[in-house]
Amino acid sequence: MNQDYIKPDNWSIIEEGFDIKRVKSSESLFSIGNGAMGQRANFEEEYSGATFQGSYIAGVYYPDKTRVGWWKNGYPEYFAKVLNAPNWIGIKVYVNGESLDLFTCKTVENFKRELNMKEGWLSRSFEATLQNNTKIDVKTTRFLSLDLDEVGAIQYEIIPLNKDAEITFKPYLDSGITNEDSNWDDKFWDTINVCHKNHQAFIEAKTMKTDFHICTFMESKVFINGKSVLIEPNIKADSNSATFSYSYQVKKSETYTIHKFGGYTVDRNHHKTKLVSAAKNVLKIATKKGFNQLLDDQKKAWANIWDMADITISGDIKAQQGIRFNIFQLNQTYLGKDSRLNIGPKGFTGEKYGGSTYWDTEAYCIPFYMATKDQKVAKNLLEYRYNHLEKAIENAEKLGFKNGAALYPMVTMNGEECHNEWEITFEEIHRNGAIAFAIYNYHRYTGDYSYIKEKGLEVLIGIARFWHQRATFSTDKNKYVILGVTGPNEYENNVNNNFYTNYIAKWCINYALENIDKVASEFPSDFTRIMNKVKLSNSELNEWKEVTDNMYFPFSEKYNVYLQQDGFLDKELITVANLDKSQRPINQKWSWDRILRSPYIKQADTLQGFYFFEDHFSDEELERHFDFYEPFTVHESSLSPCVHSIQAAKLGRMEQAYNFYLRTSRLDLDDYNKEVEEGLHITSMAGTWMSIVEGFGGMRVKNNTLHFEPKIPEQWNSFSFKVNFRGQVLKIEVSKNKTDFELEGIKSIQIVVNNKPLVISPKNLISLKS
Amino acid sequence: MNQDYIKPDNWSIIEEGFDIKRVKSSESLFSIGNGAMGQRANFEEEYSGATFQGSYIAGVYYPDKTRVGWWKNGYPEYFAKVLNAPNWIGIKVYVNGESLDLFTCKTVENFKRELNMKEGWLSRSFEATLQNNTKIDVKTTRFLSLDLDEVGAIQYEIIPLNKDAEITFKPYLDSGITNEDSNWDDKFWDTINVCHKNHQAFIEAKTMKTDFHICTFMESKVFINGKSVLIEPNIKADSNSATFSYSYQVKKSETYTIHKFGGYTVDRNHHKTKLVSAAKNVLKIATKKGFNQLLDDQKKAWANIWDMADITISGDIKAQQGIRFNIFQLNQTYLGKDSRLNIGPKGFTGEKYGGSTYWDTEAYCIPFYMATKDQKVAKNLLEYRYNHLEKAIENAEKLGFKNGAALYPMVTMNGEECHNEWEITFEEIHRNGAIAFAIYNYHRYTGDYSYIKEKGLEVLIGIARFWHQRATFSTDKNKYVILGVTGPNEYENNVNNNFYTNYIAKWCINYALENIDKVASEFPSDFTRIMNKVKLSNSELNEWKEVTDNMYFPFSEKYNVYLQQDGFLDKELITVANLDKSQRPINQKWSWDRILRSPYIKQADTLQGFYFFEDHFSDEELERHFDFYEPFTVHESSLSPCVHSIQAAKLGRMEQAYNFYLRTSRLDLDDYNKEVEEGLHITSMAGTWMSIVEGFGGMRVKNNTLHFEPKIPEQWNSFSFKVNFRGQVLKIEVSKNKTDFELEGIKSIQIVVNNKPLVISPKNLISLKS
Repeated sequence: MNQDYIKPDNWSIIEEGFDIKRVKSSESLFSIGNGAMGQRANFEEEYSGATFQGSYIAGVYYPDKTRVGWWKNGYPEYFAKVLNAPNWIGIKVYVNGESLDLFTCKTVENFKRELNMKEGWLSRSFEATLQNNTKIDVKTTRFLSLDLDEVGAIQYEIIPLNKDAEITFKPYLDSGITNEDSNWDDKFWDTINVCHKNHQAFIEAKTMKTDFHICTFMESKVFINGKSVLIEPNIKADSNSATFSYSYQVKKSETYTIHKFGGYTVDRNHHKTKLVSAAKNVLKIATKKGFNQLLDDQKKAWANIWDMADITISGDIKAQQGIRFNIFQLNQTYLGKDSRLNIGPKGFTGEKYGGSTYWDTEAYCIPFYMATKDQKVAKNLLEYRYNHLEKAIENAEKLGFKNGAALYPMVTMNGEECHNEWEITFEEIHRNGAIAFAIYNYHRYTGDYSYIKEKGLEVLIGIARFWHQRATFSTDKNKYVILGVTGPNEYENNVNNNFYTNYIAKWCINYALENIDKVASEFPSDFTRIMNKVKLSNSELNEWKEVTDNMYFPFSEKYNVYLQQDGFLDKELITVANLDKSQRPINQKWSWDRILRSPYIKQADTLQGFYFFEDHFSDEELERHFDFYEPFTVHESSLSPCVHSIQAAKLGRMEQAYNFYLRTSRLDLDDYNKEVEEGLHITSMAGTWMSIVEGFGGMRVKNNTLHFEPKIPEQWNSFSFKVNFRGQVLKIEVSKNKTDFELEGIKSIQIVVNNKPLVISPKNLISLKS
Repeated sequence: MNQDYIKPDNWSIIEEGFDIKRVKSSESLFSIGNGAMGQRANFEEEYSGATFQGSYIAGVYYPDKTRVGWWKNGYPEYFAKVLNAPNWIGIKVYVNGESLDLFTCKTVENFKRELNMKEGWLSRSFEATLQNNTKIDVKTTRFLSLDLDEVGAIQYEIIPLNKDAEITFKPYLDSGITNEDSNWDDKFWDTINVCHKNHQAFIEAKTMKTDFHICTFMESKVFINGKSVLIEPNIKADSNSATFSYSYQVKKSETYTIHKFGGYTVDRNHHKTKLVSAAKNVLKIATKKGFNQLLDDQKKAWANIWDMADITISGDIKAQQGIRFNIFQLNQTYLGKDSRLNIGPKGFTGEKYGGSTYWDTEAYCIPFYMATKDQKVAKNLLEYRYNHLEKAIENAEKLGFKNGAALYPMVTMNGEECHNEWEITFEEIHRNGAIAFAIYNYHRYTGDYSYIKEKGLEVLIGIARFWHQRATFSTDKNKYVILGVTGPNEYENNVNNNFYTNYIAKWCINYALENIDKVASEFPSDFTRIMNKVKLSNSELNEWKEVTDNMYFPFSEKYNVYLQQDGFLDKELITVANLDKSQRPINQKWSWDRILRSPYIKQADTLQGFYFFEDHFSDEELERHFDFYEPFTVHESSLSPCVHSIQAAKLGRMEQAYNFYLRTSRLDLDDYNKEVEEGLHITSMAGTWMSIVEGFGGMRVKNNTLHFEPKIPEQWNSFSFKVNFRGQVLKIEVSKNKTDFELEGIKSIQIVVNNKPLVISPKNLISLKS
């Protein structure tokens, strides 16, 4: 754990004191977003120190054709780069002619940042003494509107403290931006038009190659001591920027304020020729409300989200802050409003990884969205994959599969594979399993079979076909094997018979078979329609069964455990505890080959199988595998600690579960993996939610019924969460000696607590002693 | 086999008839070079059809920092791109105002290209009718001087056939070139200065990032009917080109000729401020001699090379043409004059692969250069690696090795690793073995121990240290294992216990131990000097022994063969003969993952071990392994057929040996792998030489004595070759019923033929009946 500078607080992320070494980390941690766009917490004014400038628009990317030396046949066409978008938050500030720049100020005192998660805004305040000895007090507040998701607002206030000062606000737009991760400062945006009128400016730009058209815009207004003043700005516009200049002779102790409204209109939502008029429309609405009213709306919108999604933890402020940070960031990234979007692993906080959609969505995020939003949101996420089925079939064809076999991409923006390392795109095929599992999980949780019979069955068939064709027969083993894969543990590449992959492959085929039977018998017209489309013969089905009945799983008699892959026991089996701390994190200290031949596990792999298919194994089996694999696990993937937390809780190892919980919930806040500068780990935050609800709450759905086995870490007095289960909201509060259940809705439901049935009626709190 | 358009000829490569589909292939096949520079056979005049323009300078490269999506820790800094160099061969030709362009001419008749290998020149002739109906006869001759290796010369002759014509020659220099393999037409050259005086022009340019300075230059002279005419040219120069224009009213049937001299001076040989004056000097020498004298010198220089290096084959013109093409190209690429250079896999014929030095040099090329040149050339190649030892140690340190362990780069220009795929650079570590083997091979062949005791032992120790550290102990197997490697068969990545790698690792350590003992006892002062440097303790030596004594080799009891790697038998073992032809070559038809999980072998892997360490195995073992592995071998590496040809010959399978011979010797001429457009496979051409000398000639060196077991393919009447063995030249001619031996030199030597000793005296032909 490195950066222990975030102040513990129940509802806010707070940093106090200005430290240039923390700027990039804080830019990540204080990021804001509204599902449609988002930004790193870059300063509005100039900053000449080390900074990572980032502003991102959902669904906008660039197809990078970068190639390494010896390109392999069948590689994807491009890598989808997450693009830094034109900057609309910039406000240069001049004080008596000197540009305000915290990197060059004589002193910066009382610096404080706050990301208020309850209300959805970011603020910053400080007192700075410039080189010209003018001392000023600054306070800024910024938010991206949830209600009007094309717009954000900034309030920037300055008070000269020691003398009168000429202060100039220079709000600007800039489309001449680059990407942090570009090799040679390449440009990815073409500016089409820069225009301005009155206090408004607009830049129309389009992305190179992909031709996404956007308009970035701003409108500003200035105030003295809270009263509007009309200043005719100086305007400077060039080929990719527009700057307005509002100067004022501010007396000592007076407050000079600018309100800047800005944002993006994009051609996903408007015709590309109407982007400026769409921008004018949204500016009209925003400025009519004004900064304060918009902020009030923002607070209400966040109150609605928290009402359903909040998790409280009493007695452990860091744990409380952690879970709220996770829930907050998930909601900043994806709200389920637009079914064309998905949940990028870095959300709107950085560029790394590229693409927007990973197996993270199905394996980690769906449970969170299913339980804290309307069930339609989860269904949207499933339909996103149905809409990409054709592309998944094309993708499999590129790799030599046929007959409708579908391989979903490892990384995608629009259904096409858009990552470019063979060991990932060609071999990390287990992702196909998670997509089938999410269908199962959705049906298990919601009871809604409509998706499967209407669409999902086609997805399941495409996936089953892939697994059937991907398995090959080993005469040596007299079993079906799956060779050359990368499992969830990406610290192994091109291994044979990864247990997790083989297991989920077998399960996928069986689950497809089961649903083929079910749709055939219960929904004959759907069945006929689908069969006409997919042309599935009995002989093909028999081949599927042959594969699932004879799948090989590597097993060690000596340790009585399934092996992560063939040959795992040939490694030098030194546990992480016995590995010199100076070698960690190994992904920063070791070369790739060394990582590959080590036994170290990046994230749950065999144990991921035990997580998904918990019911297939006894607790003793779980414990044996947990005790075998966890000691080799370095948890250098953000997706790792949550699964281990849930399993530790299940095994009654509360101290370990608690530590994993802290690690997942405060992964970024405390920068466990020394990389928070690059952005936040958004998708794993849903895993944090699971580690409370499934781990400590012990929630499961079995036979259409919610089950709970509540446990509470010693460090906590109580914790509570709500779940939306089939249209009714159940609130669970777990304390040291009791668990309370309370139901919103209209009809009673039966649940099972610690294996005993319990009926909960609406508005009738039931308290169970433990 | 695709492109069966090269006319069979003993001494020339000849193409007749103009076919736009063959232009890029012919540009490769007719490439010329002189060890210092080389060019694809691009036309001098304009050509608007599909072409791959390439002119290359030895040792000049660009550090490409292209990165794929998720970069791994420890990756090399750059990929060394082979750079297309400024063009000096261009001569635009205008006939009555129309640019001569074979792509747009009305007709092109009697088109012929000839690469005369005996004399080292390239010519082209044709009759063309332009759109303006002028019909012309054209003949060009071009060569790169072996004696003056900074200069080349072109003679371009035109005769108007049907009418008088104004003909303009526009010889030019152009540094505004790009690379065929660049993603977005990036530039890699900065032009510094363009200047001209009288009939000379010079462009000074430097490579971006690497700052290699070169001067490209030209001087021209025109003639009518062989008589010099003084035309004051029009001159046009811009920021990266200079064009001279020589117009003349040529009468029907008159011959208008231009001689153009051009080339490069480079800062490897001159101070960067003296490049223009160096160019003037070399131009002075060249123009003083004139085109014809230079060409005569060229013929003599090639005659000297052929005198030693020629292999004759009688009765099989295609086989004869093939071997001469191979010997010719090797000598065009590397002559052993400059110990800072090495033998690039594509020579001067293309850009693919990058870098200049691969294990090809040690595993394939050294025997050729050892036997056909002065022994100093082979020693230079060994010293090249000694000079890079420090960088090899640094490279190993980057990967976590310590204490002087050395890992030579897979691809290099200056000792640094300069390729950027982890499965190659981090894992294809067997290259280290070939570097040690070459030391052994040099000593075995030359009897010269000076390199080992002076320098080589340090290399052997660094390599042994690497292998010792790279092997890890498997408690499961109770043996040392080598995990996560790529063997010579690059169609497997990240495999465990590749037989070849484990075997050569063990051998390297043993060979180092043996030489440590030998130097210690025979050269104590060298020993002390080296030990002071490398600090080798007895405990370290004991650890080495522990590893070699307990190295694991995967073995199948069922097949009684060593396995290429762990798990090889899990593959679907369908032989190449049973693979649909439409699937070949698999590297163009299959995605990488499919190749990896298939049993198909790109080039000798286990069999490469049987080749290097032939004496360690019985003929029965060789036969069993050959019969097990060859049927799965697709020979999609140029380095594959030669080893198999040698082994087939050893096993007495002459038909198979012959077919492999044709495949290696005519790999590019007949374009077996459908990629000759990209350039030639230079380093494997040394393998062709081996397949005659070691395969059919059965030449081996055992106990300081040359052994032969001559065999001749049924298709041949006889074949002959010469070898320089320890300062004397032995010529061997094998016929169907006898073998002749003839010795140049001053003292008799004893050789062994078919296991019987035989003394050969100088100038005394001995004929053995077979």
